[in-house]
Amino acid sequence: MRPITYEKQNNGVIRVGGVGLKALASEYGTPLYVMDYQTILDRMAGYQSALSDWGSAYYASKALCCRAILELVKHQGWGVDVVSGGELYTAFQAGFDARAILFHGNAKSLSEIRTGLQAGVGHFVVDSLDELERLDEEARRQEVMASVLIRITPGIAAHTHEFIRTGEFDSKFGFATEGGRADEAVNLALSLSSVRLSGFHAHIGSQILDAEPFLASAQALLMFSTALYERTGFWPQVLDIGGGLGVTYQTQDRAPTPQEVLGPVSRWMVENTPKGLKPPRIWVEPGRSIVADAGFTLYRVDSVKTTPTGRTYVTVDGGMGDNVRPALYGAEYAGELDEKPEGLQSRTVAVAGRYCESGDVLMGSVELKDPKAGDLLVVWTTGAYAYSMASTYNRVPRPAMVMVRAGQASIWVERETWGDLVQHDQPLVLRD
Amino acid sequence: MRPITYEKQNNGVIRVGGVGLKALASEYGTPLYVMDYQTILDRMAGYQSALSDWGSAYYASKALCCRAILELVKHQGWGVDVVSGGELYTAFQAGFDARAILFHGNAKSLSEIRTGLQAGVGHFVVDSLDELERLDEEARRQEVMASVLIRITPGIAAHTHEFIRTGEFDSKFGFATEGGRADEAVNLALSLSSVRLSGFHAHIGSQILDAEPFLASAQALLMFSTALYERTGFWPQVLDIGGGLGVTYQTQDRAPTPQEVLGPVSRWMVENTPKGLKPPRIWVEPGRSIVADAGFTLYRVDSVKTTPTGRTYVTVDGGMGDNVRPALYGAEYAGELDEKPEGLQSRTVAVAGRYCESGDVLMGSVELKDPKAGDLLVVWTTGAYAYSMASTYNRVPRPAMVMVRAGQASIWVERETWGDLVQHDQPLVLRD
Repeated sequence: MRPITYEKQNNGVIRVGGVGLKALASEYGTPLYVMDYQTILDRMAGYQSALSDWGSAYYASKALCCRAILELVKHQGWGVDVVSGGELYTAFQAGFDARAILFHGNAKSLSEIRTGLQAGVGHFVVDSLDELERLDEEARRQEVMASVLIRITPGIAAHTHEFIRTGEFDSKFGFATEGGRADEAVNLALSLSSVRLSGFHAHIGSQILDAEPFLASAQALLMFSTALYERTGFWPQVLDIGGGLGVTYQTQDRAPTPQEVLGPVSRWMVENTPKGLKPPRIWVEPGRSIVADAGFTLYRVDSVKTTPTGRTYVTVDGGMGDNVRPALYGAEYAGELDEKPEGLQSRTVAVAGRYCESGDVLMGSVELKDPKAGDLLVVWTTGAYAYSMASTYNRVPRPAMVMVRAGQASIWVERETWGDLVQHDQPLVLRD
Repeated sequence: MRPITYEKQNNGVIRVGGVGLKALASEYGTPLYVMDYQTILDRMAGYQSALSDWGSAYYASKALCCRAILELVKHQGWGVDVVSGGELYTAFQAGFDARAILFHGNAKSLSEIRTGLQAGVGHFVVDSLDELERLDEEARRQEVMASVLIRITPGIAAHTHEFIRTGEFDSKFGFATEGGRADEAVNLALSLSSVRLSGFHAHIGSQILDAEPFLASAQALLMFSTALYERTGFWPQVLDIGGGLGVTYQTQDRAPTPQEVLGPVSRWMVENTPKGLKPPRIWVEPGRSIVADAGFTLYRVDSVKTTPTGRTYVTVDGGMGDNVRPALYGAEYAGELDEKPEGLQSRTVAVAGRYCESGDVLMGSVELKDPKAGDLLVVWTTGAYAYSMASTYNRVPRPAMVMVRAGQASIWVERETWGDLVQHDQPLVLRD
């Protein structure tokens, strides 16, 4: 939930990464996304130690994609998972070797496929027969081989929000193991001359707070592979069990550790790989569990207002434009005001955003100490899927993002300007 | 639902504004937002004729804000309602006289207030006591008068989605007539030396499909004004009944006309204004009902896939990034494929987007004729709150927007590029 470098003094002054919130707000303005370097490194280390030497980690950049985070990921020796030409472009800006890139996406355009192949992207994760054929054709035209993983839908319903649950048979993603869909895709892949099949991928959802579904998914992939081996003699080099490990948004949540998830997967792979074959290498694609806890958003309180029904609205200078998750998923966050000494009384309030709709409420019910116009409000755990899903709704520029580390702040993404918002606008032309 | 210039030939070829969809897709690419000039003019004319000479219309730019639409609105002699510094900036780019601008927003920043006052914005719609005081202080500093409307919450529950229902007492917006909140705001406004109170505003929600709530809201505003007049002698020049008139998203919907909404309001005002006083001028702020029907989105079908549960997913090259309304509100749209001749059999399918989550389904169930990879899909009625709420989620660039008119297309907003997505990204800096 909070970054590991969080400190709070008796007078209520909050520091993260050794930097005071007040200094951040005054130097960079609000709203502001802040990322704590140490927390990111800590979360990556959790995966590195759990994976040891039998697996590889690819950072799922859709959780948070900008040049600096991808440079940090690269420095740690990780690969990166991209889902679009824009994420691929950013990975190249960050200096990634194309071979360390995994190209996902259920509807890659021909231009994205072309760009990926030209650059020599390590693996494409394939989502439809149409895509397999397009990849083969384009690879033949470029006289290269396209390495692919086939995305399998194992029929596993993880306990998470409907929108971010992806492993069930009735999904827009991948090929179901049921009904022969996955077999059909494998048969096609093995028959194509410019496609090389490296293995299989499954991603069962996001923000999953149990370890079991990951093991079930890995088991399903290995069972599928074993049956396939008996039928065709093909054995995968790689099984990619995707991402989706949850994080603690509220104090009562408890997320499993990478070790708790990956330990059983690794043991099961070793014990159940058919004799004479090499256990497939395990790939994982964490995104949220790397950056969510490291990030928070700093807002300035604009006004405090109590309605006749008794609800108090604390209105801040951001909202659904910089964090759409409360409106989109009903996501709940923990929040805290800066500079509120220990003794002060708390009140239960709603935190409303500045956007012109009633649904723009960041926190429906939260305890805040004596909220007043001008206060600084922190919303914790916004490192994932806040900036990446941000809009310019109401033509409000997107916030800046800074990293804090060892008492210093440095900018990751500059704040948008009003000028940026109109940069692609053209004048009205009425020809007669 | 469809633009008024929609034509479909027997061979299934669709034209809007005299321009074929295929030509649009090939010249501007997909996804593409398209706006029909004639439909916008037709919708504006409906308000102009209903308002006659007793009211004024302000276009609510949050529905669709770019330079060209605001220029078009200005040419028709309308004012514009803005809710942020960014919308204000765009209105100035479009050449609006500041006096024709109405500045809304429940959390205007000091810099927005400052900019608005410096430019001489016609009226501020005030949402909190904090804001009233800030406006007065800044106006005094600049030695100007701030003309204001006070936003009243009349306690009316319009039948619409919870997120876009704003007139109830328990709302983050405005001052409730109940519990003395509105009286308190009026008293403060009347006591401030650099604030001039022009009247009252109420906005009861969005996408409202009955005429009655608008009359009820106008009645509430007039009753509030009459009671206030008896107490203080203040009589409003203006009552602004906001926007919120719905549109037809599905063939079974039926939206009231501006005449059906405004006729009863006008009669009621004239008949119930206390003797000896001038009926307040009525202002309206339509947004969606001006641009929604005029707009549609053009997508390219990427793949067609049937799951073992029997559902067919038609996947397109856009989705929740360019139109978040299905995921956010469960909004339903009508869709249609180009170049499908009359006789072809229809299938019930789901239309899935390209974004990496299961919730990215644009249409859960729609009848499409023989969908195939490469087809052009139109989603109708996307002129409002699609572009304006668009994100770059998954780092997918936002689509271009073009206007069609009399057989010609012209660009309103250029397509974003991969380069645009990284323009504010900074490199990682690790100081020691």
